Amino acid sequence: MNLQDLKSEVCKANQALPGHGLVTFTWGNVSGIDRELGLVVIKPSGVDYKGLTPEKMVVVNLQGEVVEGDLKPSSDTPTHVCLYNHFHDIGGIVHTHSPYATSWSQAGKDLTALGTTQADYFYGDIPCTRDMTDQEIKTAYEYETGMVIVETFRERKIDPMAMPGVLVHSHAPFNWGGTATDAVHHAVVLEECAKMAMYSYQLQPDAPRMKQGLLDKHYLRKHGKDAYYGQ
Amino acid sequence: MNLQDLKSEVCKANQALPGHGLVTFTWGNVSGIDRELGLVVIKPSGVDYKGLTPEKMVVVNLQGEVVEGDLKPSSDTPTHVCLYNHFHDIGGIVHTHSPYATSWSQAGKDLTALGTTQADYFYGDIPCTRDMTDQEIKTAYEYETGMVIVETFRERKIDPMAMPGVLVHSHAPFNWGGTATDAVHHAVVLEECAKMAMYSYQLQPDAPRMKQGLLDKHYLRKHGKDAYYGQ
Amino acid sequence: MNLQDLKSEVCKANQALPGHGLVTFTWGNVSGIDRELGLVVIKPSGVDYKGLTPEKMVVVNLQGEVVEGDLKPSSDTPTHVCLYNHFHDIGGIVHTHSPYATSWSQAGKDLTALGTTQADYFYGDIPCTRDMTDQEIKTAYEYETGMVIVETFRERKIDPMAMPGVLVHSHAPFNWGGTATDAVHHAVVLEECAKMAMYSYQLQPDAPRMKQGLLDKHYLRKHGKDAYYGQ
Amino acid sequence: MNLQDLKSEVCKANQALPGHGLVTFTWGNVSGIDRELGLVVIKPSGVDYKGLTPEKMVVVNLQGEVVEGDLKPSSDTPTHVCLYNHFHDIGGIVHTHSPYATSWSQAGKDLTALGTTQADYFYGDIPCTRDMTDQEIKTAYEYETGMVIVETFRERKIDPMAMPGVLVHSHAPFNWGGTATDAVHHAVVLEECAKMAMYSYQLQPDAPRMKQGLLDKHYLRKHGKDAYYGQ
Repeated sequence: MNLQDLKSEVCKANQALPGHGLVTFTWGNVSGIDRELGLVVIKPSGVDYKGLTPEKMVVVNLQGEVVEGDLKPSSDTPTHVCLYNHFHDIGGIVHTHSPYATSWSQAGKDLTALGTTQADYFYGDIPCTRDMTDQEIKTAYEYETGMVIVETFRERKIDPMAMPGVLVHSHAPFNWGGTATDAVHHAVVLEECAKMAMYSYQLQPDAPRMKQGLLDKHYLRKHGKDAYYGQ
Repeated sequence: MNLQDLKSEVCKANQALPGHGLVTFTWGNVSGIDRELGLVVIKPSGVDYKGLTPEKMVVVNLQGEVVEGDLKPSSDTPTHVCLYNHFHDIGGIVHTHSPYATSWSQAGKDLTALGTTQADYFYGDIPCTRDMTDQEIKTAYEYETGMVIVETFRERKIDPMAMPGVLVHSHAPFNWGGTATDAVHHAVVLEECAKMAMYSYQLQPDAPRMKQGLLDKHYLRKHGKDAYYGQ
Repeated sequence: MNLQDLKSEVCKANQALPGHGLVTFTWGNVSGIDRELGLVVIKPSGVDYKGLTPEKMVVVNLQGEVVEGDLKPSSDTPTHVCLYNHFHDIGGIVHTHSPYATSWSQAGKDLTALGTTQADYFYGDIPCTRDMTDQEIKTAYEYETGMVIVETFRERKIDPMAMPGVLVHSHAPFNWGGTATDAVHHAVVLEECAKMAMYSYQLQPDAPRMKQGLLDKHYLRKHGKDAYYGQ
Repeated sequence: MNLQDLKSEVCKANQALPGHGLVTFTWGNVSGIDRELGLVVIKPSGVDYKGLTPEKMVVVNLQGEVVEGDLKPSSDTPTHVCLYNHFHDIGGIVHTHSPYATSWSQAGKDLTALGTTQADYFYGDIPCTRDMTDQEIKTAYEYETGMVIVETFRERKIDPMAMPGVLVHSHAPFNWGGTATDAVHHAVVLEECAKMAMYSYQLQPDAPRMKQGLLDKHYLRKHGKDAYYGQ
């Protein structure tokens, strides 16, 4: 994929956010990376989804420096760049304040795997990061947001490719995937799972984590070499 | 009805799912059966509802073998086939991950009959199955999902024609009916009842099961020989 | 207003129900009365809102007998007739299974006046009826549903014109008003108040009833001789 | 901006309310002020949003007297006028009964700052006023509603420009901003935050207030001289 195609895909992925009910105003941004070129294409900051065009996308390098584009990149760009630098297999990232997932972030709780809907995409509980320290917030806040995510995955030994999302404490979710399109797909699933888990706990405060065998079965029938879902 | 008409009806019933708010992405599938031919028409796996046509429907026999169609059938086909083999009067089946019903599945709770909305279609509490065993999950998972449903109805002595739906534990609902269209109709009602029962319990944790006499009255004024609802 | 105009208004009021999010399928019916003629115009039973025309409306007298129309009237017709016979100033009635109000019916609880939204239309708590007896259910069920509503208002000394709605236990709401259009307006408000009161109690289980002075102020600035809202 | 332009903006801001899901029927009104002329442009009372035109807007002075327009101004006009008289930097006000914010008003609780979504717009907890006294309700009710808001901000030493909204006890929210358009923007954010905070508390009754450092960071990256969000 050349950079022009990546701009088109990232533009389209950004524009898909309102239709999925994931964003209010401009509260969400999608990026994609060209690993060969080491360049990230990302939404410009504070611009309406309707008015986006591939030409308005901003290109930054893996140091977070703008290398192409007339507009300022999303203020969350350093978080995206940090994740691309540490999660080497991901090709796209999305950040939104989708209401249910954000509510879990604000509650500061991991999203337990309660059923097959989550298991089809996320291989276990979706983690919530720790609180950021005052030091992290005061210095390179957006980059440190990425580092707290990376720390969460490292310390808990979670594979980011099998767990394409995270809840940032007191903030909101980030999702990723093989492409920008996949990342948005995962953001939709996360929001749906966040909603249903909330309802399940309301119905049954002791709702049980799903059985490991059922989690394995559903995740693996859609992922890996023995997958048999789809055409 | 010939097989061509059944394909058209099943296609249409699948396409009705998004409009009823029952599905995200491709998370739902409808099938219908021609009892004389012993053939089941079902949605192809992982295909968008918009792009469905009667020609894309897959035909399988009651052993679950594809007998017609270029695409792979829904990965849930063995569950559908199992239910057709054991519930002899049903003509259509639908499976979705509709959010409220799925939340009850994840909570692992029967959906108590709290009011006349449910009584108009479901003659009592809508059962939730037991957890599946590791053995059932590891072997013929999708077929065993059907068997756990069958066991639930058999052990509790529930008539599937008077109770056209079930909650599969840690998973999601299945509904059925005389036709594929009826099955989808019941899925909509289940989702609505699942939502309202959740709200009722939030308002009143001790919300009472409706009186048996009221349940009888509402179910029987719409079903059976003394029905008097509709034209 | 002649009967033809009443049919048009009742038809239109029925057709407004889906747009207000008050009904699933055909779960709602509106009627209006011509007090001079003693005739009630009501929706036919089980017919889709889209296909309704003024000509399809059914006319019944105050004994509940069909006097005009080719279709069967709503199965809830005896409830409507009962209410017209006892609440002499109402001109229109609507029954729906709107989700939030129905959830309160299923919880069996009065809808407490918590704020000015409710006070603008309902002069106090919206009552929930008692359970119906087996005898009432077995005999003239739909008419007795009306009688339980009438009993509720009589025993609690509530003026139906100042309290244009009720929650029927284990069932769903009825609303009324000066006209069929007003009745539907009140059904929308009830649903909104039922939703917000549920949320308020979730936020604060001890949420206080609003002050009587505030209730008086809001109700009376929109109703009665000193009203000053609107043009 | 001349008065004609202000009428256009206020008209447009009123018409934006239904699309944002903030109003049922005519339950919401927006105003804007021309500080040089000392004139407030406000929605006429009880008029549908669709039928609004700039010409139908009503102009009142800072004593609340109509100086231009054929229709009666919103019944909440004295509240708007009171706020303009006391909060000297605001340029627009909106009042709605948006469901989530209204539910917090009915619960009588401040909306705690739980996450960055709120911090991006509101510099701390969004206050809920005290109950109004019988005396305040009986006399100049709408003007006193404004005075209770003013008292809340004065006593708690809150800067209305850094906290562009309030929950009026047993009633509903008011929002404001530099312009009528900004006020509506803040009303949308308040509703979203009210929803998410309710969910967060349902997930975690002890959900923690966000860290002060994170609140500072998010509020200040969008407001004040060091802001760096947007273009």
